[in-house]
Amino acid sequence: MANFKGHALPGSFFLIIGVWWSVKFPLKHFHQKGKKNRLSQKQQRVEIIEAAVRIFCCVIGFLAEQLVRDGPFFHLYQDDHWVKMMNWQHSTMYLFFGISGIIDMLTYLFTHIVPLGVDRLVMCMSILNEGFLFYYHVHNRPPLDQHIHTLLVFIAFGGSITTFLEVLHRDNIVLELLRTSLAILQGSWFWQIGFVLFPPFGTVEWDQKDEHNIMFITMCFSWHCVAALFIVAINYMLVYCFLARSKKQEQGEIIGIQKLKSDYTDQTALLSSSDEE
Amino acid sequence: MANFKGHALPGSFFLIIGVWWSVKFPLKHFHQKGKKNRLSQKQQRVEIIEAAVRIFCCVIGFLAEQLVRDGPFFHLYQDDHWVKMMNWQHSTMYLFFGISGIIDMLTYLFTHIVPLGVDRLVMCMSILNEGFLFYYHVHNRPPLDQHIHTLLVFIAFGGSITTFLEVLHRDNIVLELLRTSLAILQGSWFWQIGFVLFPPFGTVEWDQKDEHNIMFITMCFSWHCVAALFIVAINYMLVYCFLARSKKQEQGEIIGIQKLKSDYTDQTALLSSSDEE
Amino acid sequence: MANFKGHALPGSFFLIIGVWWSVKFPLKHFHQKGKKNRLSQKQQRVEIIEAAVRIFCCVIGFLAEQLVRDGPFFHLYQDDHWVKMMNWQHSTMYLFFGISGIIDMLTYLFTHIVPLGVDRLVMCMSILNEGFLFYYHVHNRPPLDQHIHTLLVFIAFGGSITTFLEVLHRDNIVLELLRTSLAILQGSWFWQIGFVLFPPFGTVEWDQKDEHNIMFITMCFSWHCVAALFIVAINYMLVYCFLARSKKQEQGEIIGIQKLKSDYTDQTALLSSSDEE
Amino acid sequence: MANFKGHALPGSFFLIIGVWWSVKFPLKHFHQKGKKNRLSQKQQRVEIIEAAVRIFCCVIGFLAEQLVRDGPFFHLYQDDHWVKMMNWQHSTMYLFFGISGIIDMLTYLFTHIVPLGVDRLVMCMSILNEGFLFYYHVHNRPPLDQHIHTLLVFIAFGGSITTFLEVLHRDNIVLELLRTSLAILQGSWFWQIGFVLFPPFGTVEWDQKDEHNIMFITMCFSWHCVAALFIVAINYMLVYCFLARSKKQEQGEIIGIQKLKSDYTDQTALLSSSDEE
Repeated sequence: MANFKGHALPGSFFLIIGVWWSVKFPLKHFHQKGKKNRLSQKQQRVEIIEAAVRIFCCVIGFLAEQLVRDGPFFHLYQDDHWVKMMNWQHSTMYLFFGISGIIDMLTYLFTHIVPLGVDRLVMCMSILNEGFLFYYHVHNRPPLDQHIHTLLVFIAFGGSITTFLEVLHRDNIVLELLRTSLAILQGSWFWQIGFVLFPPFGTVEWDQKDEHNIMFITMCFSWHCVAALFIVAINYMLVYCFLARSKKQEQGEIIGIQKLKSDYTDQTALLSSSDEE
Repeated sequence: MANFKGHALPGSFFLIIGVWWSVKFPLKHFHQKGKKNRLSQKQQRVEIIEAAVRIFCCVIGFLAEQLVRDGPFFHLYQDDHWVKMMNWQHSTMYLFFGISGIIDMLTYLFTHIVPLGVDRLVMCMSILNEGFLFYYHVHNRPPLDQHIHTLLVFIAFGGSITTFLEVLHRDNIVLELLRTSLAILQGSWFWQIGFVLFPPFGTVEWDQKDEHNIMFITMCFSWHCVAALFIVAINYMLVYCFLARSKKQEQGEIIGIQKLKSDYTDQTALLSSSDEE
Repeated sequence: MANFKGHALPGSFFLIIGVWWSVKFPLKHFHQKGKKNRLSQKQQRVEIIEAAVRIFCCVIGFLAEQLVRDGPFFHLYQDDHWVKMMNWQHSTMYLFFGISGIIDMLTYLFTHIVPLGVDRLVMCMSILNEGFLFYYHVHNRPPLDQHIHTLLVFIAFGGSITTFLEVLHRDNIVLELLRTSLAILQGSWFWQIGFVLFPPFGTVEWDQKDEHNIMFITMCFSWHCVAALFIVAINYMLVYCFLARSKKQEQGEIIGIQKLKSDYTDQTALLSSSDEE
Repeated sequence: MANFKGHALPGSFFLIIGVWWSVKFPLKHFHQKGKKNRLSQKQQRVEIIEAAVRIFCCVIGFLAEQLVRDGPFFHLYQDDHWVKMMNWQHSTMYLFFGISGIIDMLTYLFTHIVPLGVDRLVMCMSILNEGFLFYYHVHNRPPLDQHIHTLLVFIAFGGSITTFLEVLHRDNIVLELLRTSLAILQGSWFWQIGFVLFPPFGTVEWDQKDEHNIMFITMCFSWHCVAALFIVAINYMLVYCFLARSKKQEQGEIIGIQKLKSDYTDQTALLSSSDEE
């Protein structure tokens, strides 16, 4: 959908996933520190729910692209013409991300069957597919449109490489945080594209051929990058503080209980000693 | 051979190899699980047969390119002109894949001489060579022809990188499945090229300059990708189910035999006890 | 700042960092040899100081770009125009390198919280960001200007890849020395750009379209490369000699003390033996 | 030197190095099999000699480029013009390869000082430098000239990546054999360039714009590739056979000696037993 909503929808999906990951991965990191265990039952359930949500988002996206007012309504070829190729391409992206979600779910449902890393591989391929489709998406467009979409392709290829590296270096927190940042970056960049190409609140349109606009967008990309890193860093710290605090409270309670216990022991000791007197 | 058959032949070769791999690698994966052994005698024999079949396919391909009706018949330079460069280039591709087959065979025949990984390296080079030749193949062609061949080059480079990674990360099931998917993808894409550029059943020709055709082909590539993943996943599951079932049957028989044995022991115990009475 | 100083300032920063690294990494290498220990308290303090210096440099660079005579003075958009995009882009580079410095500092201040490798990742991203901004910086310029900046982009991408590899292969002295060389190379190349595009001492301007100038600059880049390697090699040897010498002196003193001790023992032995007589 | 000799000289250097490596690496591989030892004194001496020969070759190449009849004779800038940039660029290549040789020598002379992998890194940089200079070498040339040099750039980048991988995966025989093949390929391709661009024996010149010539050269590159692999494979087998045979002979002698010994023991036993009678 070549309008503001068509960019806000995937942007929101990526932002939600990215922010969620920026909480999940630090949590997993601090939990697993020291122990080289497999996932706990609880973590497994979380992963399956995440995969289900991702599949659900993709189904929504897919249907939105097909059933929007000027969409193809599942018609591919009509009257000697391909119908609404744009929408079909976007649907294909959602389809691929949906498959990635399904494979993720299978990986955590049947851990002893599906080989570890296949989930990351299919995720890598679905991001690569997105980059690939966008790459051939942007020809014959005005310079600013082309430029702003090209940067999206960069994010996609970066995310794809990162996810592929996770096939070989699984559970590397640094790679996971990088993937998280790229997901947030992609989400916020989708919103940026929407705001630039289809100004939503009746603001003036951007001159798509102005060299200065392109220069600003290039720099703006760096700022989005910084912002994504910042969000991930903040969430990482929040998770750490939350865990440290709850650990302290827990220990506090244990100490309290131990104190009660020892008081009780002392008292009974006193009593028994008084009895003995 | 710039016709339908010239694309259907390599397409079929790649499809056969790909589907075979999608059975072989899961089988190997489930067999080797847990044990870090070298290949068994049986597996070695299977690998040698595979290599032999691959060499055979390459010989057929090579001869077909040379001896087809308008082929070069092994003439390279005649009357101050290079003869049938296209066919020669295709022959060279088959030649390189044949060499890869020979090296594979040598690797499994003389395991203690040929260093592990050389087979993957030569396979990587033969795929790279294919991509390289196709890359310089597509200049000065109509846009759709160029585009559809470029996508083939992508598959080749992807396959080449994957196979090279296997030099360093041998027996990684995820990389092997990726290679398998890429082989199937390449096979099905060769067929797709044949259908698009040389419609076989008298259907209308594709307009090679229509932007919408190019957009559809781009998306179609993603679908082939999904289909290749799907085939690999299905075969993987089938192999798992087959192995799980045959294991159960085997155990069933063993239990049956044990039951027979224990029944017999019980009976003899009974008899002996009755004797004692 | 499109003038000599605007290139000399970052050039000097990179040179200083590079030369410092060419001392730091060999020192660390020879100290840690054999032992696989974590950083000592002293090394940690050095790292924190380095990070502080880097942040300080970035603040200076940032402010210089903003507050220079024809700078934007923190105005981004004025009178329907983007203000001084060039300076803003340079500021963005300094900003990103500053963030890298902050992350480095946090990594060494809170070693048990920040996961190892995040510092390298953010450094990688800040170098990548530099390369990215320069890449879109050089369009629509005369050939020599474009060429000489493109080579800077190469250094940036090379440095970025190297630093990313350090995420996965931390404390690899070869990668660290490579990064060091690239930092020095970048520093000296910034100076070279300044000298070529804005000859400072009233020398004649370079013809920016002359093919021979471009050929010389290409070769000159190789020479800078050689020079960078040379500086790193020299400093590496100096550090080794310094350490070897101070070790010898130390051992010499110990031997001296031991000699004094043994002399003393001999004397007392003599005395006691004479007493016994 | 833009003539036949100017390509035959580096071609021969690369061929010699390549063929030597195709003997050295298999020898090392079979010697080190099983044992994870450091280099023996003998191997170290061989490496130092190799480095010396490489430095010597580079000095010859450097001087040849400078002192050839129409060379620059060490003049860089004269009469407001750069002197003979081509020759200077070639000299720079030789210089870089010479530095790689020096670092190699230092690595094997001072094994406890120079960190392992620096030799490979500098070799990687010298090959990268060659590719880089050739890349900017080929603009504004006829298509065939450009194409045939571009392929050289590919070899250089391939060799550079391979050598860099050896920094991280040292003593990997597969990577070493790949590097060997690429060295031979580069050598033979230099000769090919010489034969195509400067036909030495008075044969007709190649039409540098003919599409068919370019197609043949592309394919010819694949054949050179095959040939390089073939040479490496043959030498690998020869080394294996030589080692196997000399081992057998050795063992034969030992068995012979043991037989003599046991015969002697038997005889003396006989004698002593006869004495005892």
